[in-house]
Amino acid sequence: MNLILLEPHDVAQNGQALLRDQRRLTHLREVHRAQPGDTLTVGCANGLIGKAELTAIGPDQATLRWEHLGEPPPPALPVHLVLALPRPRMLARTLEHVTALGVKRMTLLHTKRVEKSYWQSPELRPEKIHQHLVLGLEQARDTVMPSVTLVKGFRAFLDEHLPALLAQGRGLVAHPGMASPCPRGINEETVLFIGPEGGFIDWEVDQLLNAGCEGMHLGPRILRVETAVTALLSRLF
Amino acid sequence: MNLILLEPHDVAQNGQALLRDQRRLTHLREVHRAQPGDTLTVGCANGLIGKAELTAIGPDQATLRWEHLGEPPPPALPVHLVLALPRPRMLARTLEHVTALGVKRMTLLHTKRVEKSYWQSPELRPEKIHQHLVLGLEQARDTVMPSVTLVKGFRAFLDEHLPALLAQGRGLVAHPGMASPCPRGINEETVLFIGPEGGFIDWEVDQLLNAGCEGMHLGPRILRVETAVTALLSRLF
Repeated sequence: MNLILLEPHDVAQNGQALLRDQRRLTHLREVHRAQPGDTLTVGCANGLIGKAELTAIGPDQATLRWEHLGEPPPPALPVHLVLALPRPRMLARTLEHVTALGVKRMTLLHTKRVEKSYWQSPELRPEKIHQHLVLGLEQARDTVMPSVTLVKGFRAFLDEHLPALLAQGRGLVAHPGMASPCPRGINEETVLFIGPEGGFIDWEVDQLLNAGCEGMHLGPRILRVETAVTALLSRLF
Repeated sequence: MNLILLEPHDVAQNGQALLRDQRRLTHLREVHRAQPGDTLTVGCANGLIGKAELTAIGPDQATLRWEHLGEPPPPALPVHLVLALPRPRMLARTLEHVTALGVKRMTLLHTKRVEKSYWQSPELRPEKIHQHLVLGLEQARDTVMPSVTLVKGFRAFLDEHLPALLAQGRGLVAHPGMASPCPRGINEETVLFIGPEGGFIDWEVDQLLNAGCEGMHLGPRILRVETAVTALLSRLF
């Protein structure tokens, strides 16, 4: 927790916050070994960052006070990530990784090789997704909450979502066996498609390429989704 | 398990192997739903890769037979990774990630901000480290086992290991606040230094820079060690 993210329910009044959840209280006590008088980094959700003083910490609440929060959050990546829904444990970690890396727009998509049961996972409940996004923001000292859209049909995605997405930026499909290697250090608005374990099926790749996306690959190694996502984002931006 | 890694104790005779461990038998049954007659990708440890036929699978063993293994493993990364020892759970995942990405030489190093208790973790037992390396190789369809060296003192590292390492390649220290961004797509022998959670201390950075390393950073975001390692390797190579 490199930043305490203050959501509207945390902020008691202007310049003061009250934390009441055991996760953060335990972290402050056991990891930060925080004492009243300590200075901590805080940021308002979707807002500015600065230093606050811990004015009290007890078993059920902690209070923070600050003069001025003036620092902007770190820049976001210029990407909309379209990710075939990973299995639940991998999803949890992947949401944290990509949020820490600065992704702000994500679509979790059904494809042929996504197991249908994944869509029933409790990890997809909005409050669980929110929790993982918060962990990613706390890690990277960011405040800007990503938006996550769930699309449970690939055809519906092609018809209802893809054209608007591709109007925003360059479509790149990461898929083994494509002719071009993943480009490096591009500085442009991108829509990045990453398949499930086992990959997109050929028909899905064809649909994306026909819609105007470019295919690219990360080399001969088969990577777990969470490794591939980080590797792709880091190489692209 | 995208490749079955055949270690010397698996190979019954030339062209035939016998698997007897429950981990792989369970994986073959439950994930691959493998049946006799199926074709699977196998590779000899530190050797070549090819297709084998599953000739039998029972509760306690499976047998594989092949004609010829002729495919070389994927290329390795030209890097020696010097990583401050992460906490045990993070170490396990990081060993898998970096092995899948193609790292073949690793030093796990003590630094000031590494908790001393981490060195007592069962995750550091050779058989546990070996297990994580195998998982990484199986994931990436690789056969070449990385070597992992443990160095429990930073001063001993400076005196006894660093000069020989830097004679092999360009030293790069990933550390927040350095002046240069992480270079992209370098194609040269590199020694990459990555600090612990909380970072190297200034004195440690100074020692590495004085010895001829260059400092570099990954941007303003603070990343978990496992995310940072993947991001750095993917951007550098």
